[in-house]
Amino acid sequence: MIELRDKLRQFAAERDWDQFHTPKNLAAALSVEAAELLEHFQWLTGEQSTRLPADQRAAVRDEMADVLLYLIRLADKLEVDLLEAAAQKIAKNAIKYPAGQVRGSMKKYSDY
Amino acid sequence: MIELRDKLRQFAAERDWDQFHTPKNLAAALSVEAAELLEHFQWLTGEQSTRLPADQRAAVRDEMADVLLYLIRLADKLEVDLLEAAAQKIAKNAIKYPAGQVRGSMKKYSDY
Amino acid sequence: MIELRDKLRQFAAERDWDQFHTPKNLAAALSVEAAELLEHFQWLTGEQSTRLPADQRAAVRDEMADVLLYLIRLADKLEVDLLEAAAQKIAKNAIKYPAGQVRGSMKKYSDY
Amino acid sequence: MIELRDKLRQFAAERDWDQFHTPKNLAAALSVEAAELLEHFQWLTGEQSTRLPADQRAAVRDEMADVLLYLIRLADKLEVDLLEAAAQKIAKNAIKYPAGQVRGSMKKYSDY
Repeated sequence: MIELRDKLRQFAAERDWDQFHTPKNLAAALSVEAAELLEHFQWLTGEQSTRLPADQRAAVRDEMADVLLYLIRLADKLEVDLLEAAAQKIAKNAIKYPAGQVRGSMKKYSDY
Repeated sequence: MIELRDKLRQFAAERDWDQFHTPKNLAAALSVEAAELLEHFQWLTGEQSTRLPADQRAAVRDEMADVLLYLIRLADKLEVDLLEAAAQKIAKNAIKYPAGQVRGSMKKYSDY
Repeated sequence: MIELRDKLRQFAAERDWDQFHTPKNLAAALSVEAAELLEHFQWLTGEQSTRLPADQRAAVRDEMADVLLYLIRLADKLEVDLLEAAAQKIAKNAIKYPAGQVRGSMKKYSDY
Repeated sequence: MIELRDKLRQFAAERDWDQFHTPKNLAAALSVEAAELLEHFQWLTGEQSTRLPADQRAAVRDEMADVLLYLIRLADKLEVDLLEAAAQKIAKNAIKYPAGQVRGSMKKYSDY
């Protein structure tokens, strides 16, 4: 991920794009990419979404890459360590959603 | 990231949540988290978004973690290697947006 | 809708919020509200989403109202006649998706 | 809006698309359209977003129409009166955000 971060830095520098890469704009772009990812699934059933045809899967993989790239870029700008943040979030969620209590249910934690 | 993937697998298994984690649902959840991230920036200027107060920054960091976690979970379900996909996407983008041609401009590649 | 537009104008004026209501910010806010709407459905099956419990339905109705309000506000700022634009879009879609050709299928028009 | 609702009903019926139009799928599609709308603004400054070139403005108008159409379709499926819901939401917001208290500030209501 360090490597990707550095490539993205160079990519932006070579194109003079840092001026556009405010956290606000990157968060918007990330959200747009996440929606493009969702678009591939919007009319499928859950079951169909588990067995995408090869061309759809390749397109989905590309959108996932875009999401990750904007996320890494945003993390770079905000000086966030993504992997550390994610590990801490899992720990938080384990407290928010005790396995014994939420088993097989997807209610919001505030509803337990 | 392998470690996070494994923790997420265990997290879902302990809660019997795999039944909800279809690619379709995970893509929707990812998109919702990306919007929650954007929400923190929606009324800020670009400049303000570069200097978030500490509590805002912590909240933003948490939302970024959520995005990454759903992305890793989706990648697991679709058997996508995220880092490889991202590296290949940067290479593609370098061709789509030649540095010499797009310098300082953010038009869509189809407009060049 | 004219009435809602006027109420929203007054609402913003009384709070000195016009400074925040750039088209860019309103589009971001609209997108965030649309995601909050989606959040209510993210773990449901399609079938479950057709029979929401009363409290869920009320919450969904509120999110739909938020989407409409930001859409009207954005239309006001961009001087777009929403109903006219929507009627024209239906006409366009009828050409893009000829009933005889797309019957029972949800592929993108570019795939026909 | 009644007219648009009826046209959309006919449009879906002629294409046998009701099977795809679950509230869940419509909410996802609405969210995707809202993101496509946002995409036009993602790299602009707030100020630039107030003076779109004509072709951009036409594209934005089309995306706004898509958002409205999916919203009307979803409201039809959930039997929600959109205009009534929106009017009630403005009244709620007036209580949540008292003009005297929030003047010139965009904090979340829970932060007041």
